[in-house]
Amino acid sequence: RINGDRLWDSLMEMAKIGPGIAGGNNRQTLTDEDAEGRALFQRWCEAAGMTMGLDTMGNMFARREGTDPDALPVYVGSHLDTQPTGGKYDGVLGVLAGLELIRTLNDLDIKTKHPIVVTNWTNEEGTRFAPAMLASGVFAGVHEEDWAKDREDATGKTFGSELDRIGWKGDEPVGARKMHAFFELHIEQGPILEAEGKDIGVVTHGQGLSWTQVTITGNDSHTGSTPMPMRKNAGLGMARVLEKVEEIALSHAPDAVGAAGHIDIYPNSRNVIPGKAVFTVDFRSPNLDVIEDMVRRMKAAAQQICDDMGLGIEFEVAGGFDPVTFDEGCVTAVRNAAERLGYSHRNLISGAGHDACWINRVAPTAMVMCPCVDGLSHNEAEEISKEWATAGTDVLMHAVVETAGI
Amino acid sequence: RINGDRLWDSLMEMAKIGPGIAGGNNRQTLTDEDAEGRALFQRWCEAAGMTMGLDTMGNMFARREGTDPDALPVYVGSHLDTQPTGGKYDGVLGVLAGLELIRTLNDLDIKTKHPIVVTNWTNEEGTRFAPAMLASGVFAGVHEEDWAKDREDATGKTFGSELDRIGWKGDEPVGARKMHAFFELHIEQGPILEAEGKDIGVVTHGQGLSWTQVTITGNDSHTGSTPMPMRKNAGLGMARVLEKVEEIALSHAPDAVGAAGHIDIYPNSRNVIPGKAVFTVDFRSPNLDVIEDMVRRMKAAAQQICDDMGLGIEFEVAGGFDPVTFDEGCVTAVRNAAERLGYSHRNLISGAGHDACWINRVAPTAMVMCPCVDGLSHNEAEEISKEWATAGTDVLMHAVVETAGI
Ligand SMILES: NC(=O)NCCC(=O)O
Ligand SMILES: NC(=O)NCCC(=O)O
Repeated sequence: RINGDRLWDSLMEMAKIGPGIAGGNNRQTLTDEDAEGRALFQRWCEAAGMTMGLDTMGNMFARREGTDPDALPVYVGSHLDTQPTGGKYDGVLGVLAGLELIRTLNDLDIKTKHPIVVTNWTNEEGTRFAPAMLASGVFAGVHEEDWAKDREDATGKTFGSELDRIGWKGDEPVGARKMHAFFELHIEQGPILEAEGKDIGVVTHGQGLSWTQVTITGNDSHTGSTPMPMRKNAGLGMARVLEKVEEIALSHAPDAVGAAGHIDIYPNSRNVIPGKAVFTVDFRSPNLDVIEDMVRRMKAAAQQICDDMGLGIEFEVAGGFDPVTFDEGCVTAVRNAAERLGYSHRNLISGAGHDACWINRVAPTAMVMCPCVDGLSHNEAEEISKEWATAGTDVLMHAVVETAGI
Repeated sequence: RINGDRLWDSLMEMAKIGPGIAGGNNRQTLTDEDAEGRALFQRWCEAAGMTMGLDTMGNMFARREGTDPDALPVYVGSHLDTQPTGGKYDGVLGVLAGLELIRTLNDLDIKTKHPIVVTNWTNEEGTRFAPAMLASGVFAGVHEEDWAKDREDATGKTFGSELDRIGWKGDEPVGARKMHAFFELHIEQGPILEAEGKDIGVVTHGQGLSWTQVTITGNDSHTGSTPMPMRKNAGLGMARVLEKVEEIALSHAPDAVGAAGHIDIYPNSRNVIPGKAVFTVDFRSPNLDVIEDMVRRMKAAAQQICDDMGLGIEFEVAGGFDPVTFDEGCVTAVRNAAERLGYSHRNLISGAGHDACWINRVAPTAMVMCPCVDGLSHNEAEEISKEWATAGTDVLMHAVVETAGI
């Protein structure tokens, strides 16, 4: 069993870096706060006897040696970056649970056959630089590294220049490492485990996602002196598309979700009819056909709305991944661990994207989930109990150790 | 007749300060660019033999003496500040036309009985600091000066601190000056004069306006893992209110207009369901009852939408003014001037708010309008012809000189 108090203390210590405004965190990727969080994680890893690797995307790899020099490592981890108004556990729990299981193995003087590597993947959240899970995506060969480095934040700074600036770019080529397996513990970010009183989610699948950035073009003009029939109001066009997004997602519920979290209006002046609206539509489903249907219908409806209003419209893919089926062997290792430890569990489909979804393409992968209060995440009020974190980390350790061999 | 080439040269010279990105201007109030524009105007005024007064709201008053030491001055002017993506003429024409008529009187060695004062009113646009026409409103006793100084821009800077910073705060108490009359030349910002081929709009009335800032509160949560029925999507609530704004304005058309130009979404992250939407609804009509009806219906509809969706909602007055009837004597002076000069003209109701709308409360006031291409304003592509500007300034000069007496 892991040391739940120690795990919790580390979570609270990390949460001091990049505090939010309402009890959560703002430690967005490649900010000074991200650099500080990385440094703390590195100090803890070194204190636990691990050696740190760093690749050219800033992915961190803390290694504990195994007894078999030829065995590929078992990887475990998640991400330390947060949303701008994020919680203390989304991502962080998965990284610090990896650290905690190493500390526990050290305490118990247990050596594994395969080495164990604890990872912190860069820019999982995708808020500052879209798409989400950017660096694990490059690792898995889904994105070109140059393309990833060119992603820009809202102020025009690139991923590459910001990675250089905070000093966390390594020399190691991305994706060069081979993995025996990868495990990620994450909070559920949804309501199911808590509602059913289950300790552990055994994640068998992940939903797929499509991000479509929509740009509607109208004509800036005066809100007072422009007659109603002469207006080309891009903001109103956007409002009509948002209503369609809801309608289309609901038509597939409960098998799909849809919303727009990102909305920018130009020039954003009280007395100027919006000449431009840029927003990102997020559609998700465990079923690829459903995602494709939603995107197709949204585009057709949006095109029609804009044609009717004399507005221009353009669509751009801002991110996406197909639904994921995790590795049967790894999933079984997670389920067996929960059984063995006496934790109640159920199968889950992850509603969110995770680094594990990409790594699953290059290594046998599975995820462990623990409940979170009211299913709330991407909110500073995100909360979990120490018991939930402890149970999840126990299961993670047992699955990892079973896979790494003793 | 005024010197149209000289007027045009001055317009183009001023437009070099705070250039936009598409041929227009970004010379928002109390920025460094505003300070530069003010300094240029002051140099021109001094070169034309005027003396500059400056009040504690930064309003500028360039005075040309009259022959009667007891006569109150005739005021003429508008504003030099622009929208963030504004045109070269909105406001600027009215200030530089005032300067040009002084230059012409100097050329012709004409002395008026009443002094003439050319004004630049601070923060007419209201984009950076709401409400619009802020400093003329304080001058007219509509707003408290302390309240006006406390207005904040999007970054939290106050009007008062920014006025201090750019060094254009004077000693003169605001509103202490008494006016014999006030005249403002402005581009129409609407399509009527151009469509009807008229040179001059004789502005008899101004529309009233109501700005309601709406704050809808939902709950930030994950776009992927939050089930549709659990969502409290403030962005979707806003979309539904925007549709109602359009519907309500159209129900009163052509006697009313309505739109939202300002929209901010929080936390504005692609994978976070918006927990907060803040936007400003702009309703206008020449009929006060219509404005009040629109605001009442919008609030009721928005409340209902939010109640149905489990969202919170709050309303705040962000600005407003009642419909205006300009002074009969001044309006007649404008119409007579157009007649005398042989310019075609028609009566107009101003669709936009203007400093003249406030000054009308404390002095006999009227406005002259000239056409603008496609009725387009609050757009960098805003355009007028030299001939239109010249005709408008001719009429302004004749109305002013008739009122000031020779
Ligand atoms: N787990 C998580 O919040 N990942 C961010 C990517 C996503 O939007 O699903
Ligand atoms: N003329 C003008 O654009 N004034 C700004 C105030 C308004 O919104 O009407």
